[in-house]
Amino acid sequence: MSISIHVANPNSNQAVTDSMAKALQCYAGAQIDIHCTTLATGPFGIESQADTDSVAMPMRDLVANDKDSGAFVIACYSDPGLAMCREATDKPVFGIAESGLLTALSRGQQVGVIAIARPSIKRHQRYMRQMGVLDRCAAERSLDMTVAETESGEHTLEKMIRIGEQLRDDDGADVIVMGCAGMARHRAPLEEALKIPVVDPTQAAVGMALTTVLAS
Amino acid sequence: MSISIHVANPNSNQAVTDSMAKALQCYAGAQIDIHCTTLATGPFGIESQADTDSVAMPMRDLVANDKDSGAFVIACYSDPGLAMCREATDKPVFGIAESGLLTALSRGQQVGVIAIARPSIKRHQRYMRQMGVLDRCAAERSLDMTVAETESGEHTLEKMIRIGEQLRDDDGADVIVMGCAGMARHRAPLEEALKIPVVDPTQAAVGMALTTVLAS
Amino acid sequence: MSISIHVANPNSNQAVTDSMAKALQCYAGAQIDIHCTTLATGPFGIESQADTDSVAMPMRDLVANDKDSGAFVIACYSDPGLAMCREATDKPVFGIAESGLLTALSRGQQVGVIAIARPSIKRHQRYMRQMGVLDRCAAERSLDMTVAETESGEHTLEKMIRIGEQLRDDDGADVIVMGCAGMARHRAPLEEALKIPVVDPTQAAVGMALTTVLAS
Amino acid sequence: MSISIHVANPNSNQAVTDSMAKALQCYAGAQIDIHCTTLATGPFGIESQADTDSVAMPMRDLVANDKDSGAFVIACYSDPGLAMCREATDKPVFGIAESGLLTALSRGQQVGVIAIARPSIKRHQRYMRQMGVLDRCAAERSLDMTVAETESGEHTLEKMIRIGEQLRDDDGADVIVMGCAGMARHRAPLEEALKIPVVDPTQAAVGMALTTVLAS
Amino acid sequence: MSISIHVANPNSNQAVTDSMAKALQCYAGAQIDIHCTTLATGPFGIESQADTDSVAMPMRDLVANDKDSGAFVIACYSDPGLAMCREATDKPVFGIAESGLLTALSRGQQVGVIAIARPSIKRHQRYMRQMGVLDRCAAERSLDMTVAETESGEHTLEKMIRIGEQLRDDDGADVIVMGCAGMARHRAPLEEALKIPVVDPTQAAVGMALTTVLAS
Amino acid sequence: MSISIHVANPNSNQAVTDSMAKALQCYAGAQIDIHCTTLATGPFGIESQADTDSVAMPMRDLVANDKDSGAFVIACYSDPGLAMCREATDKPVFGIAESGLLTALSRGQQVGVIAIARPSIKRHQRYMRQMGVLDRCAAERSLDMTVAETESGEHTLEKMIRIGEQLRDDDGADVIVMGCAGMARHRAPLEEALKIPVVDPTQAAVGMALTTVLAS
Repeated sequence: MSISIHVANPNSNQAVTDSMAKALQCYAGAQIDIHCTTLATGPFGIESQADTDSVAMPMRDLVANDKDSGAFVIACYSDPGLAMCREATDKPVFGIAESGLLTALSRGQQVGVIAIARPSIKRHQRYMRQMGVLDRCAAERSLDMTVAETESGEHTLEKMIRIGEQLRDDDGADVIVMGCAGMARHRAPLEEALKIPVVDPTQAAVGMALTTVLAS
Repeated sequence: MSISIHVANPNSNQAVTDSMAKALQCYAGAQIDIHCTTLATGPFGIESQADTDSVAMPMRDLVANDKDSGAFVIACYSDPGLAMCREATDKPVFGIAESGLLTALSRGQQVGVIAIARPSIKRHQRYMRQMGVLDRCAAERSLDMTVAETESGEHTLEKMIRIGEQLRDDDGADVIVMGCAGMARHRAPLEEALKIPVVDPTQAAVGMALTTVLAS
Repeated sequence: MSISIHVANPNSNQAVTDSMAKALQCYAGAQIDIHCTTLATGPFGIESQADTDSVAMPMRDLVANDKDSGAFVIACYSDPGLAMCREATDKPVFGIAESGLLTALSRGQQVGVIAIARPSIKRHQRYMRQMGVLDRCAAERSLDMTVAETESGEHTLEKMIRIGEQLRDDDGADVIVMGCAGMARHRAPLEEALKIPVVDPTQAAVGMALTTVLAS
Repeated sequence: MSISIHVANPNSNQAVTDSMAKALQCYAGAQIDIHCTTLATGPFGIESQADTDSVAMPMRDLVANDKDSGAFVIACYSDPGLAMCREATDKPVFGIAESGLLTALSRGQQVGVIAIARPSIKRHQRYMRQMGVLDRCAAERSLDMTVAETESGEHTLEKMIRIGEQLRDDDGADVIVMGCAGMARHRAPLEEALKIPVVDPTQAAVGMALTTVLAS
Repeated sequence: MSISIHVANPNSNQAVTDSMAKALQCYAGAQIDIHCTTLATGPFGIESQADTDSVAMPMRDLVANDKDSGAFVIACYSDPGLAMCREATDKPVFGIAESGLLTALSRGQQVGVIAIARPSIKRHQRYMRQMGVLDRCAAERSLDMTVAETESGEHTLEKMIRIGEQLRDDDGADVIVMGCAGMARHRAPLEEALKIPVVDPTQAAVGMALTTVLAS
Repeated sequence: MSISIHVANPNSNQAVTDSMAKALQCYAGAQIDIHCTTLATGPFGIESQADTDSVAMPMRDLVANDKDSGAFVIACYSDPGLAMCREATDKPVFGIAESGLLTALSRGQQVGVIAIARPSIKRHQRYMRQMGVLDRCAAERSLDMTVAETESGEHTLEKMIRIGEQLRDDDGADVIVMGCAGMARHRAPLEEALKIPVVDPTQAAVGMALTTVLAS
């Protein structure tokens, strides 16, 4: 794949442009290794505060013990153990909820979040308030499914589109975050259907992780 | 350069992990072309609201006329014309102030901003309030230099370190954003000196741009 | 016309009352000259961010070149170029969106805004957040008309009443701002119909302008 | 006195301009009668919450019994009884704290308030939070004087300048509100000394009152 | 009645636990005398801002003149005269709106308030904004009854359940505050019906009062 | 000990007063059993995010397994596992940070927090932002001690007074929360020295717990 980014310097100062061009060379031609692991001891899906908190310590150990990676991504939309993992390593650590929401804020004005199940909404709301970005959240709505259902069910995309339309039309969202780790395959068709940007939080977090490392 | 990102799935659901791994292949081996241009008609430095607003329309024309690029970055820490550029194209457009601040929010709790000159602080403050993230800003302090001085002057880094120390120690910042487009060369030594993350906003915006395009 | 304002000093300190009475003499018997001009190069209506930004520089030139006026009012409900115009002159400059909203905050608790067309709502929302008063906004709803239609159409008032009722009854607004420059003729009948205060933003801004100048 | 206000319509729609010009005729040539009264039963100065609350009911009676005035101004910088007075009449009622702060928000970005005495600061802070504008307040600082001292004392202006300089330089205020009813005579010299706008809250409230009535 | 509270110290520091146990002895075996009085001169119900403000001074006198009580509770859900009463005594003074809302924030994430009548909602909204907790309020809805009707009417509980269901299901409240002083008898059945915590504000305030005094 | 609480009904409605008196009988003569336990597996002091998160699961188990207690208090000023414990039981669960802060909001306008050590401040700040009460926090300052030192050291109170004076005089706090579980013995002397209310968070949480249970 080939992509092209245009960086336009609105002042006429060529030295600034040259300086930027040099600073951005880091992004071209890097050898990027992204390895995904599964926490064997984790619950099958993270659907409650207990599920979330139960994996915090294991995530910390994982981060503390991996001396090779340049950055870490906690791939659960509750960012379990994020603050603790940041204590445990000097490498940058990204949570997919935080990164997904921050990325969405660069694509639209009011974020709509699609949750898998209703009980997560309060947990996510606490987190957005903690981040200080709750005012930029139009609403969060739930698919009312289990993690297992979202995976097997063929109707998942269909439901996501319907919920996404409600977020867009009733709540005023102009960008959507999929509030779960494993739904990236639905991102493009959902965006196609809704005609507003859709952010997969894992891609967002890995994007922030790799460009942070490349820029270091 | 070779980088390694560890994406850890805190639940034990391998299918989710596999799905993520597939979604992240987009980041490996892409051919990335980042081209930086200078707005010939722009002011030498953008130091006032008039400087900012004067380049908004030209930025819009630039974005509207470039059919080839996959994304745009407005490389001035006042994000001139950003909302209008987003009207003018279906491609994603990133402003370096917005992206720099959002990226900083994933690296620390309270952001300290280093401005080149004092008059910009009120302008940036309005913008952070518009973004809804002013509460996450510890403070913004100024180098009290001209753009020309920051470039030629050998004391720029020295001053940045002193201002950065004030932001860290007096204002409680635990992450720094350099509030200007052309200072990326100081990022690493400043981070080294301050021992807290330092974000170059242009790198941050290009990072968001390229990973957004790769993930599309 | 003859108006009577009662200024009641709740303490028994007559010297304070006398001092106020003296300070308020400026408002009686002033010779007020309000001249309205049209920006010949502007778009017919301002309906997009591009329309807004396109008139910012011309507004600045207009303000910078008029040495005779004592104050300026930017008569478009997107306040184009307001911050820049304030840089360009020592005279006070008022935007009708800012003044209309601030005036409304002295007449009710939650403001309802009537926009001409839907795309303006996001732009206005950004602006209210920038002002820090978004929490005092009950909602903004759109007439879904063009500027041309609002002018010619005989049904404009009728639609404004219907939208105003929604803002009042469904959203909890207890004061209305008409989110456009040229609708003052509908102010009184709309207020009559809704039984809550209705603010014309141009009148509000000119009111703030003239009393600011008189008080100087 | 003769003042000149320039209302500039940034679109090229002459009909809008004509419509505004017509709506603004109300401000020219009005016969304005501003009468100031003293609440004989009030305390000499309002320096505590008890002073404030003690005059609320009398202010309500005053407003309810005056059928002739077109608007009311409660001329104490704690706005005693304002919400109740608004219940008691259909005429608009303005409080000088509310109007002074709202007017200041159209003249600068961060408001500095000069209080007469320290105990009032908490009371004013509660009020600014209630208004939802506390984030736009840079700081409030006290002259540490009694109301009596501010009146007789020749050093009042001198102290106001010193406090104003602290608000401007240490707290970042770019507009000042004088947090008391009877200090209008110091407005101009204070503004002269500080080089940033200074708002007298009584003038601000009366300005809002008279233009509201004229525009009705 | 016998209650049992488990205080669990999550660190292994027994000295801390011993210290706490000692500090909590104050709560066991106290002789508690709660006496409720009626303000003979007050209105029958407090339904307007005028009703509220009319009792502020009498409440202050009552507090200033009672030298025997260890704490005071202002038992009206508009907290009339609260700030002034706190000036008038060194004893702690609690308002039932403030205490009810703060207590609710320890039982749920978003508070739903049940008002007796619609006009009180704006008054309560101002107060929650003044407290800085409006963002934690899901909504306030009204029974549309008079105080007299709530007392005699047998349908009060039924209506409260219906309004509570709307607050829970449509507005997202997960804790309810009954916005009136005399409805404690409905607390348990309402909680039973709604399956979310219901807070009686008078009980909440007296609870805070007595434990504050016991802990002194 | 004997305490006396005066509950004053500001309306003249005796039935309301009678109803309250009945509802408050629950507080008199209750048999209160407060038992404090130590988590044997916990760290000696909780000084980091890792310490906090490490005790979350054990606290949940403790709460889930104790069927006898009527309410639970998590006695660590980071409220470890609070949201999860609330999932694990139908009994009310209180965290001492949450309860301490909410109680302080009923005693003063701006809360000053005394932390044991500096690293906790960021953690507490995140939590206050999550609660939505950060704006009511004047500042948090640290004793720069270890938990062990606060216990043995005779200079603890002396340091607390010095930090408390800074919070009161430099930051504007008018109520203090001691940000640690085991410092209740310093509450009274600290309050005596500072002349503003001092809240021990464990007493606050147990107070809320017992009155909640009594009122059920």
